[in-house]
Amino acid sequence: MEKAFQDYYADRFSHCYGCGRLNPDGLQLKSYWDGDETIARFMPRPEHSGGVPDHVYGGLIASLLDCHGTASAAAFACRAANCEMSSVTPPDRFVTASLRVDYLRPTPMGMELTIKGRLRSIDGRKVRLDLSLSAHGEVCVRGEMLAIRYVE
Amino acid sequence: MEKAFQDYYADRFSHCYGCGRLNPDGLQLKSYWDGDETIARFMPRPEHSGGVPDHVYGGLIASLLDCHGTASAAAFACRAANCEMSSVTPPDRFVTASLRVDYLRPTPMGMELTIKGRLRSIDGRKVRLDLSLSAHGEVCVRGEMLAIRYVE
Repeated sequence: MEKAFQDYYADRFSHCYGCGRLNPDGLQLKSYWDGDETIARFMPRPEHSGGVPDHVYGGLIASLLDCHGTASAAAFACRAANCEMSSVTPPDRFVTASLRVDYLRPTPMGMELTIKGRLRSIDGRKVRLDLSLSAHGEVCVRGEMLAIRYVE
Repeated sequence: MEKAFQDYYADRFSHCYGCGRLNPDGLQLKSYWDGDETIARFMPRPEHSGGVPDHVYGGLIASLLDCHGTASAAAFACRAANCEMSSVTPPDRFVTASLRVDYLRPTPMGMELTIKGRLRSIDGRKVRLDLSLSAHGEVCVRGEMLAIRYVE
């Protein structure tokens, strides 16, 4: 089975509520390559309802974009450096410097959501990405992220 | 005891994962007046860790800004109309059209966070707000929101 970007993070970077494989109480989002783009899928739980009936909670949506974005930044940076992610050489960990989320239309409950990432630019430690979230093939949310490579 | 903005929402608008009083599995954020501004406080749970050790999860932070922002929009709109929130006349429900979150510095785990809202403008159904999130008196995150009054 294909391993997700997040499955390659070093253990100390794997406790994220949104996507850490070592956080059993978290959402455990998993991101993958999809050609030149990246993709993740997530099925909201019934309690992830928003303020309006039958709409997904906007904070969950921001969370999915956040985790998919930072994981995609790590993957794009890795590919740009002509390296492949592996457990032997875990990817750099990126953190969010800025995230903008535009809610274009309500995101419906009760179906799997698709989150996509597209590289805009890499400039040193900074990676800029365009993000989207779709339900049933329709884009409901667009996002922009500036991610920065974390330095310990 | 003072009721929070969210406690005045009509029942059908009270199932939000972030702040719905009728969502027992949610975060139940509560927002209040603080002079001309608005304020909410939240203690992250241990599982709300971010990708980097001892830092709060960015998606949780976006969620707190999202719920405090829309509740503040309802409160500012109510005050601008010279009305007072009450259970008899529940406030209008606002939803997020756009949210920008700038993570200025890591938000530390293990302490209560303070979220504040300040009105920028009201224009028909649109309310613009500046948001911040602080830990131990230091601003860690700044946000900007465009909230829109929901029409059924």
